[in-house]
Amino acid sequence: MKKHRCNKDADLPPLGVSIGDPAGVGPELCLRLLSDRSVAGICRPRVFGSAAVLAAAAAQCGLEVPADAVSLKEWEDGADPAGPAVIDVSWADAAHLQPGVVSASCGRHAAACIRLAAAAALAGRVRAIVTAPIHKAALSLAGERFAGHTEMLAQLSGAGRVCMMMASEELAVALVTTHVAISEVPALLDSESVAAAIRLLRDALLRMKGREPVICVLSLNPHGGEGGLFGDEERRVIGPAIAAARGSGWRVDGPVPPDTAFLPDRRARYDGYVVMYHDQGLIPFKMLAFESGVNVTLGLPFVRTSPDHGTAFDIAWTGRASPESMVQAALLAVRLGALR
Amino acid sequence: MKKHRCNKDADLPPLGVSIGDPAGVGPELCLRLLSDRSVAGICRPRVFGSAAVLAAAAAQCGLEVPADAVSLKEWEDGADPAGPAVIDVSWADAAHLQPGVVSASCGRHAAACIRLAAAAALAGRVRAIVTAPIHKAALSLAGERFAGHTEMLAQLSGAGRVCMMMASEELAVALVTTHVAISEVPALLDSESVAAAIRLLRDALLRMKGREPVICVLSLNPHGGEGGLFGDEERRVIGPAIAAARGSGWRVDGPVPPDTAFLPDRRARYDGYVVMYHDQGLIPFKMLAFESGVNVTLGLPFVRTSPDHGTAFDIAWTGRASPESMVQAALLAVRLGALR
Repeated sequence: MKKHRCNKDADLPPLGVSIGDPAGVGPELCLRLLSDRSVAGICRPRVFGSAAVLAAAAAQCGLEVPADAVSLKEWEDGADPAGPAVIDVSWADAAHLQPGVVSASCGRHAAACIRLAAAAALAGRVRAIVTAPIHKAALSLAGERFAGHTEMLAQLSGAGRVCMMMASEELAVALVTTHVAISEVPALLDSESVAAAIRLLRDALLRMKGREPVICVLSLNPHGGEGGLFGDEERRVIGPAIAAARGSGWRVDGPVPPDTAFLPDRRARYDGYVVMYHDQGLIPFKMLAFESGVNVTLGLPFVRTSPDHGTAFDIAWTGRASPESMVQAALLAVRLGALR
Repeated sequence: MKKHRCNKDADLPPLGVSIGDPAGVGPELCLRLLSDRSVAGICRPRVFGSAAVLAAAAAQCGLEVPADAVSLKEWEDGADPAGPAVIDVSWADAAHLQPGVVSASCGRHAAACIRLAAAAALAGRVRAIVTAPIHKAALSLAGERFAGHTEMLAQLSGAGRVCMMMASEELAVALVTTHVAISEVPALLDSESVAAAIRLLRDALLRMKGREPVICVLSLNPHGGEGGLFGDEERRVIGPAIAAARGSGWRVDGPVPPDTAFLPDRRARYDGYVVMYHDQGLIPFKMLAFESGVNVTLGLPFVRTSPDHGTAFDIAWTGRASPESMVQAALLAVRLGALR
């Protein structure tokens, strides 16, 4: 444990971090985050997770454990280390962990750490949270009925409509529907869900850019439905949501045909996009920003970001996982948290 | 009319070109094609269209009319100019043409020229055809019941399954479904349509590359349906088509999740992609190749290509339309025609 830190660290905003599935790349990403200079320069990360797991991952990956650690009990009693810190969430199975293997126990630890990070955010003890990747099957084995972070955090915080945004230097896309079959997308679209995505994206971009953003809303159908020839969601659902947004004085274009919406001259014109389904936004997003993308949940009472990748069980605990997206997630969380 | 041409021109393969909607950018693109050196070096273009329209467009756009012209009657009697040539399809309304305006008369002329080019291909008088853009509304006003070139050419040639491919230096994508509403896509997918797209793409790539190509077949649903969690088309429809293709000894991967399929390392691995719906393929395609993309109809008894854009009524007859895609369409048509 390091005892002597500059006093100025204590002035930096605290950032909550959940360790993710311990059998995945979460532990090593948390270690890299704790020792990252660009992160340390703007916030004090608090990693919620097993200190024993972090120490084992550090040894295995050849990384250092640079942070203070306090027990969960000390944290709950009000301890607040001056610099980067681990909030040690004890986990009985830490010694038996098998990297790259799905297990109920790992799912339980991951879920516990998310709850603790969310509670810290709701209590105002951290300014924002970053969540390392979890494994849906492990969460399900652990008896959690949530499809993922977003649903879990929405329920924990009593949020209304939430919306997934992917953000990078190159592009920001907000998704009206996310992890559902293509066959279910048309029925899930209504003017309210499209309007909510526009509102939440506009709110986030307004804070990020410091000015009224220009938003592009995509059509659902190819060529925008070609005047109703193939599909009427543009006229029936998307158009009215855009009209309402314009009525609020916001700068919103659309419905714009998807295939030409991401050409360079369009991207230069727009600060962000509202897309109707997962791959409509994620195909162009990942082409432009594979390693640096950040997932942001809009609509929660606190800021939450996460890296744009999964648990990567195939390379977990090898030290080979790129920390780029995790670091970008922390930097964006602090930025959005400060603007709130 | 130029009379003296090198004899070697007569050895180059003849390429049929339909003028497209005369009120659009078709006439000026045909003029540019007729005077393009890279095109003239490998084929003898024959533009089916009104010579009066081409002369008027040349005057308006400041372009030259460099080609021989023979009447349709002379062509049908066996005339075959040595170099680039216009096959003059007379059109009573040529003098009243209004650029940028949809009309039944323009639709009729466009359709007549497509029929003549297709007939020339079926008779073996041209090696392949390139079609300049048409306007669907004009075609409809003219009483044509076809949605576009593809449907018209399929019927004219008695073709079985046809498939739209977009090709450029960067990417080749074959579409299982094209201009339909997203809500109709899942029901339109069956193992036969997916298998046909794989077969037609493999056949085209085999000729283009001169070796067995490696093909990536996308999933319909995000994350490939995440093991059936959202959508079962991967297991029910796409998987069996891939298995059948592999059974034929072809190199086919999939179903591959769409969002990461177009990252640089994947594109380096694959010669072409089979995509399930329009924007799944056209979003990445247009991002990588906006001006140089070529549309190829696979499955016809002759080679047919077209530029990757529409009639562009807003800039028609100004001379501002980029000939890049039209020229690439001609070059690819000749290449595919020679390999047939």
